[in-house]
Amino acid sequence: MTRLHDPAAHTFASDNYAGVHPEVLAALADANGGHVPSYGADPYTRRLGEVIVDLFGEGAAIDPVLTGTGANVAALQALTPRWGAVICAATAHIYTDEGGAPERLGGLKLLTVPTPDGKLTPELIDRQAHGWGDQQRPQPLAVSITQSTELGTVYSVDEIRAVSDHAHALGMQVHLDGARLANAAASTGASLRDLTRASGVDSVSFGGTKNGLLLGESVLTFTEEAREGITFLRKSDAQLASKMRFVSAQFLALLEDDLWSRSAEHANGMARRLRDGLAPLEGVTITQPVDANAVFVVLPRGIVEEIREVHHFYDWDRPTGEVRLMCSFDTTEQHVDALVADVVEALGRL
Amino acid sequence: MTRLHDPAAHTFASDNYAGVHPEVLAALADANGGHVPSYGADPYTRRLGEVIVDLFGEGAAIDPVLTGTGANVAALQALTPRWGAVICAATAHIYTDEGGAPERLGGLKLLTVPTPDGKLTPELIDRQAHGWGDQQRPQPLAVSITQSTELGTVYSVDEIRAVSDHAHALGMQVHLDGARLANAAASTGASLRDLTRASGVDSVSFGGTKNGLLLGESVLTFTEEAREGITFLRKSDAQLASKMRFVSAQFLALLEDDLWSRSAEHANGMARRLRDGLAPLEGVTITQPVDANAVFVVLPRGIVEEIREVHHFYDWDRPTGEVRLMCSFDTTEQHVDALVADVVEALGRL
Amino acid sequence: MTRLHDPAAHTFASDNYAGVHPEVLAALADANGGHVPSYGADPYTRRLGEVIVDLFGEGAAIDPVLTGTGANVAALQALTPRWGAVICAATAHIYTDEGGAPERLGGLKLLTVPTPDGKLTPELIDRQAHGWGDQQRPQPLAVSITQSTELGTVYSVDEIRAVSDHAHALGMQVHLDGARLANAAASTGASLRDLTRASGVDSVSFGGTKNGLLLGESVLTFTEEAREGITFLRKSDAQLASKMRFVSAQFLALLEDDLWSRSAEHANGMARRLRDGLAPLEGVTITQPVDANAVFVVLPRGIVEEIREVHHFYDWDRPTGEVRLMCSFDTTEQHVDALVADVVEALGRL
Amino acid sequence: MTRLHDPAAHTFASDNYAGVHPEVLAALADANGGHVPSYGADPYTRRLGEVIVDLFGEGAAIDPVLTGTGANVAALQALTPRWGAVICAATAHIYTDEGGAPERLGGLKLLTVPTPDGKLTPELIDRQAHGWGDQQRPQPLAVSITQSTELGTVYSVDEIRAVSDHAHALGMQVHLDGARLANAAASTGASLRDLTRASGVDSVSFGGTKNGLLLGESVLTFTEEAREGITFLRKSDAQLASKMRFVSAQFLALLEDDLWSRSAEHANGMARRLRDGLAPLEGVTITQPVDANAVFVVLPRGIVEEIREVHHFYDWDRPTGEVRLMCSFDTTEQHVDALVADVVEALGRL
Repeated sequence: MTRLHDPAAHTFASDNYAGVHPEVLAALADANGGHVPSYGADPYTRRLGEVIVDLFGEGAAIDPVLTGTGANVAALQALTPRWGAVICAATAHIYTDEGGAPERLGGLKLLTVPTPDGKLTPELIDRQAHGWGDQQRPQPLAVSITQSTELGTVYSVDEIRAVSDHAHALGMQVHLDGARLANAAASTGASLRDLTRASGVDSVSFGGTKNGLLLGESVLTFTEEAREGITFLRKSDAQLASKMRFVSAQFLALLEDDLWSRSAEHANGMARRLRDGLAPLEGVTITQPVDANAVFVVLPRGIVEEIREVHHFYDWDRPTGEVRLMCSFDTTEQHVDALVADVVEALGRL
Repeated sequence: MTRLHDPAAHTFASDNYAGVHPEVLAALADANGGHVPSYGADPYTRRLGEVIVDLFGEGAAIDPVLTGTGANVAALQALTPRWGAVICAATAHIYTDEGGAPERLGGLKLLTVPTPDGKLTPELIDRQAHGWGDQQRPQPLAVSITQSTELGTVYSVDEIRAVSDHAHALGMQVHLDGARLANAAASTGASLRDLTRASGVDSVSFGGTKNGLLLGESVLTFTEEAREGITFLRKSDAQLASKMRFVSAQFLALLEDDLWSRSAEHANGMARRLRDGLAPLEGVTITQPVDANAVFVVLPRGIVEEIREVHHFYDWDRPTGEVRLMCSFDTTEQHVDALVADVVEALGRL
Repeated sequence: MTRLHDPAAHTFASDNYAGVHPEVLAALADANGGHVPSYGADPYTRRLGEVIVDLFGEGAAIDPVLTGTGANVAALQALTPRWGAVICAATAHIYTDEGGAPERLGGLKLLTVPTPDGKLTPELIDRQAHGWGDQQRPQPLAVSITQSTELGTVYSVDEIRAVSDHAHALGMQVHLDGARLANAAASTGASLRDLTRASGVDSVSFGGTKNGLLLGESVLTFTEEAREGITFLRKSDAQLASKMRFVSAQFLALLEDDLWSRSAEHANGMARRLRDGLAPLEGVTITQPVDANAVFVVLPRGIVEEIREVHHFYDWDRPTGEVRLMCSFDTTEQHVDALVADVVEALGRL
Repeated sequence: MTRLHDPAAHTFASDNYAGVHPEVLAALADANGGHVPSYGADPYTRRLGEVIVDLFGEGAAIDPVLTGTGANVAALQALTPRWGAVICAATAHIYTDEGGAPERLGGLKLLTVPTPDGKLTPELIDRQAHGWGDQQRPQPLAVSITQSTELGTVYSVDEIRAVSDHAHALGMQVHLDGARLANAAASTGASLRDLTRASGVDSVSFGGTKNGLLLGESVLTFTEEAREGITFLRKSDAQLASKMRFVSAQFLALLEDDLWSRSAEHANGMARRLRDGLAPLEGVTITQPVDANAVFVVLPRGIVEEIREVHHFYDWDRPTGEVRLMCSFDTTEQHVDALVADVVEALGRL
């Protein structure tokens, strides 16, 4: 196969535009060769389970899957009976960006709440947390939060704890969509465990692809109840990898030597550097706290397209001109500085 | 990450026990580095589309997905309206081994037919092909065949043509579950195109993982009708890879230099060698034609477990003692001969 | 069987608390006796089809079902492919009160929009009408409006026409949840046809139970496309009555002698009388236009429970103290005046 | 509304061709008038619950629904988690005649077993009862039997007990599709309780429509576990009647004065009379035991159509010429004798 792309290209479009971290690619090669049992009965998946117990404590379990959507659906199905509904922010990825998978694949009902910053609070949850026993109302039996959120904001440990305590007091389980949990941990300085199990979260969609994996997501659970049926659900949700060693080996590469933390911290740092470069500029408005690896910013309309042409990024809110700049494990200071310099230069020409 | 397995280990358990073909691993490395658009808008996926048109003709399209189950469900959903039912063999993987995914994930009704060898014929199809317009009967609107079948048998071009013509004459679409299509092509000498589009097949689950990929499956379609909605269905079936370049690059490695054919031919050849070694032995019965890379065989009960301990394989039919021996791209003559020798030796001790 | 209730009891709780209109009960008796084909091949269902063509024009068709939820789900499934999403008001019955049936039973994705009065407009629709072709976004392919709305408001013919024109221009179909369509027609003076087919609506959940039927709902469609597959969907949605003559006969009773209009006009008139009695009272606030048979009103907290004890009604918005007073075909001037008198009396005692 | 049919017409087509038993129609009139709470909070539904406890013992509960399909789906959903599969006969109504509702509406996987007479046995169940814990196999967690079966045969109390004991020993729940349970009870002389709860059955789809109701089915459960979530499932399966008093009142009419038994016994007696009249005739073959209200018979091809023209019935197996003659609560000796006489006469003319 011939290389068809420029390996020096960089964008601020998405952490999914980045490729595979070299340590992850090396792990794939190491895991290759010879025969091992398929569908998860291999030594890499077994070892991954041990690593998870080390990180999250006894009773923690990990079930590798293939997409974030698959992780979310399987985790939420395992958390709720057939009649359960899930409270989430109106901006939640599960509601807006998964092609209706939770509803169609999972038979899940989502009850949405508008939020200012993508974060749920006990008060916001209460807007939908009612009607238990009412046979006509989908029964709110789980809350799903995203960490870091779709708006680049991050829940503190205390904020998650407040959500969990409130949800549990009302008989609801707590799910955390952690496609970018690593970035949140790097941002807060809290451990992965502090941000999840120790804060009362019952299950987590723990993502790897956005943090340097080739392809790999997972469902983390902390109780037998939260995990019940997950292996069957994983299969009927079409998320069971036959050669699972290669998914598990990637997670081992991510977790065993703190690659997850190094990469996330780096990406977050690049986002802060970007914010720091852009924020002082006249006509440029940072619209959300830069807690993780995303910068939401309004640039003057006159310069957006020329900047986009070179640095690539997505519109977030077309009416206001807000765009999203995403940093990755392979974003460098040079990339950031070049973008800032181009903005400065373009502003000067306005 | 530390290597946790013996890269010299070999089994006859499954072509999923094998790892990644070195040419595929090299393609992953080549596709890595820098940024390319996610979700399929990358140059590898584009090139893959061109390769498919070269192989299957104008109008052919490929949509990479993540599991064979996902490929089957998405392909069948695209082929049928909400009320469509799918006729398949009672041994079909979609009915027996996918955790109910076609029904649960896809909302698909499967109408099964018992077969002697895993292969449908026009006559067998007719057992379920009736009741159109009857509002109480799930409407048979598609036929799904597996090539090579779950029993290791292979449809000839003429047999597929007969199925397709019959199905089309009755207003039904034709789907082919091609998790091991490469083995069937290598077995018959027919081209991939002859065995699918040229024989009237409308869409194919074209598998790669069982033939040396790390992780990658796909939906091949030959008409706009068969492909309608597939990208949306792929997403809501949780089959959309974010870093799709790495799935597409694997398929390029498989298809561009005939790796698919070399690997499949090799595995088939090993299966024939195995059959030739076992068939003459007294007390050993080959139970299905060895058309592809599987050998179904009844071994004397007294020797099964000791052979299994060394060579690893699965029971197929416990009551009769039938087991399945599967050859892979990395099965060698030494592996085969060692198994045969061990059987001969064990039989001698009976 | 012994009578177990007081046939003189009346409430303002729901038009579902009322029983069967005597003309409907008579029709059931007339349709009884002897054998007729089941599942819709009977003369009453045939005749009903003719009545619908008379009322709505050539090409109109009716398919009786059993619940409003079932009608909504089947109608929306027939209007959209598997990947279609439906835009509706955040207060829509399909989103809030059907136990998640559209999602779970129908595999439908609902995209909600907050509204001030339960009514969608082209501008409000635009909040969700985007993202066609984006493989991650559920595809907006239908709009569902409720007439009269869950808030007792009524769309004018022009308002429906504006919604339909806008939706069609964007490639979306239009569904109308007409559980109380009769009340809307009686309110506006427009014909059933004017409010639906003539205003561009593609299919209607046409309700009967809330207007004096024992049990009976239906799906009205005006094009072959809108009706495609409806009989199969009706069955797999568990909505196919075996002794369908008895559902169809009720609709004949409703439609043939304008019973639908007489009953709806009466109920609406009672609601207006109620409004007129309550509106002038100090401390009482009517919160929504009284277009149909519901009055939404805030009563002083100190008197709500004593009034409720006698007249029975439901809270609508507990925080504000808003309650819903519903009039039925069997609500009388005496019932209304008694409630008003009791409120006056209770206010005096405050 | 005008009567559109001949109230003296009779057929042997289906017990669904018959109308409403006069005692049931009277109950509807008695239950009418005035207001009672909707959605099941009415005195008729409450009383029905008491009657069920009287008949089936403490802990028995009934939840009225609208179709047999709806009853089956809701009952099976309540019995199984999301990953559960249901073992049933290949002739089971849930597999062949419900438009795929169990799969599509319920997300249920059905594992079918061929049977000679529509009845499952422990041995037959074992053909599908395996693979627990295998993540790729739909997990067999319930068995569903039909009583009386789709072939007119009846399980004895001992046969049900054997099925239940076997299923429970394997960790599976037991569901009984009792659309014609009344006929089975009348046939065996066993009580409804003996045939269900006392034989180990966990939940029952208890039918009324085929035994003289206008429209009404129900889910009977005997444990809290079997009933868990049923009211929510009933709603999301679109089976919740708003004016439920009218469904419950029909069941009261059926159960309070043994109408169920009188009607079923009568229909069974007519079937036996039919069998006794036809069996001795040369060229006529009774193909199944006449345990309930159906006679399966092969008539000489030359006479089928002329007999059908007058007496109306359905083909059962076109290749063999087997037809089904169904007796109803309103079938009379005259109807039966006329059919037999016509057959005799037609045979004479051959």
